[in-house]
Amino acid sequence: MDKQQLIFDGFEKQIYSTEDPDVVILHFKDDITAYNNIRRARLSGKGELNCAISALLFEYLRKKGVSTHFIARQGTNDLVCRKVQSIPIVLVVHNYVAGSLASKLALPEGFKPATVIYDLRYNNTELGDPLINDSQAVALGIASFDDLAAMYAYARSINTMLVSLFAAAGLKFVDIKLQFGKTSDGELIVSDEISPDTCRIWDAETGEKHDKDRFRHDMGWIVDSYAEVLHKLQSIKE
Amino acid sequence: MDKQQLIFDGFEKQIYSTEDPDVVILHFKDDITAYNNIRRARLSGKGELNCAISALLFEYLRKKGVSTHFIARQGTNDLVCRKVQSIPIVLVVHNYVAGSLASKLALPEGFKPATVIYDLRYNNTELGDPLINDSQAVALGIASFDDLAAMYAYARSINTMLVSLFAAAGLKFVDIKLQFGKTSDGELIVSDEISPDTCRIWDAETGEKHDKDRFRHDMGWIVDSYAEVLHKLQSIKE
Repeated sequence: MDKQQLIFDGFEKQIYSTEDPDVVILHFKDDITAYNNIRRARLSGKGELNCAISALLFEYLRKKGVSTHFIARQGTNDLVCRKVQSIPIVLVVHNYVAGSLASKLALPEGFKPATVIYDLRYNNTELGDPLINDSQAVALGIASFDDLAAMYAYARSINTMLVSLFAAAGLKFVDIKLQFGKTSDGELIVSDEISPDTCRIWDAETGEKHDKDRFRHDMGWIVDSYAEVLHKLQSIKE
Repeated sequence: MDKQQLIFDGFEKQIYSTEDPDVVILHFKDDITAYNNIRRARLSGKGELNCAISALLFEYLRKKGVSTHFIARQGTNDLVCRKVQSIPIVLVVHNYVAGSLASKLALPEGFKPATVIYDLRYNNTELGDPLINDSQAVALGIASFDDLAAMYAYARSINTMLVSLFAAAGLKFVDIKLQFGKTSDGELIVSDEISPDTCRIWDAETGEKHDKDRFRHDMGWIVDSYAEVLHKLQSIKE
């Protein structure tokens, strides 16, 4: 499928239209950004790895019966996807406490809470992507209570599936940021990517980080670390 | 009932034990503080007014069948209350958007959302009373999902009652901060105060503020403004 117009040029990904109005192409760039785009770099091979990992995980979810925007991988850095109208919310699922959540609640990094934590963030760079909740999202007019219930249901089942998949790969699935959109016929589905840029992934034995925190905290070996995630996921015997 | 030991010395209130281990006395001071205690003042008569307004509102809720920690007013500045173990959560109910919520969501002050907004704040001065949500509260071990459901149910009915009461007094009930605690036999009830220090109250016609925002924004006439709230509430013909 050919790229036509560039319809979105993000920090780390681009979206192109295709000849089918309900289909887009997601192009993964090598750029990496953090802290609301304050820290930036270009890491050769990063886009291809995130594209491959996302394709693998979306395939896995599809086999398990979870519908997402993913249709197929194309070439090295592109995913063919169903076109959605994005909901400007990021739903973060935390199996373990890490990053800004740890400092906000004064809990230790790696703390396993008695319950999985679900956070909503308003996807609004100008406002600093603030933490919101269900009633705030509805008040903002960006989602209905039904949309939110569907998003939590998706998040719960996707998280459960990925926790076991990553465990089988010897990896601890710490947290995941999910984004959602609506297709032209109003179906709410998972969009965006699922990769070490949008999940925290730690080695189950050593605790070594295999995700964007390596970039945030200047730990080096970022691409190698992402490659190891792909390799471990590919090595799972099902 | 006599005050025995001072068991809590807050910025604006004190709590004393009494001869009954299940009963405390809440003493309202004239001190007023804002911005996490950065702005402070002493306003003669403020404590008595908040004590009177709280007593009036707690009485009203009791008549409507809502159980709170309130037993009776005693003298000018004291409430006799059931002793509770405080839950370190503030539940804020917003009928209109105002204050920090307005700036956080980039909504205009006074915006009436399609749905009432419920916010949880972790009552922790050191952490800056951060916004949390249900799963974070449970993860912190400060409330169970059942406690939260009970708190939302109380908040919903109290807010509905107070919206109509204040409307009958010509006042717009903008928002309210509620606190909760558990009695020695495990009952979850509303604690603290309900006053212009913990609610935003605007004149229904002119929009004039009758609450702590006058202090936050240095608008003057604070005590007079609180007195007008009491006067208007006392003038309601039922």
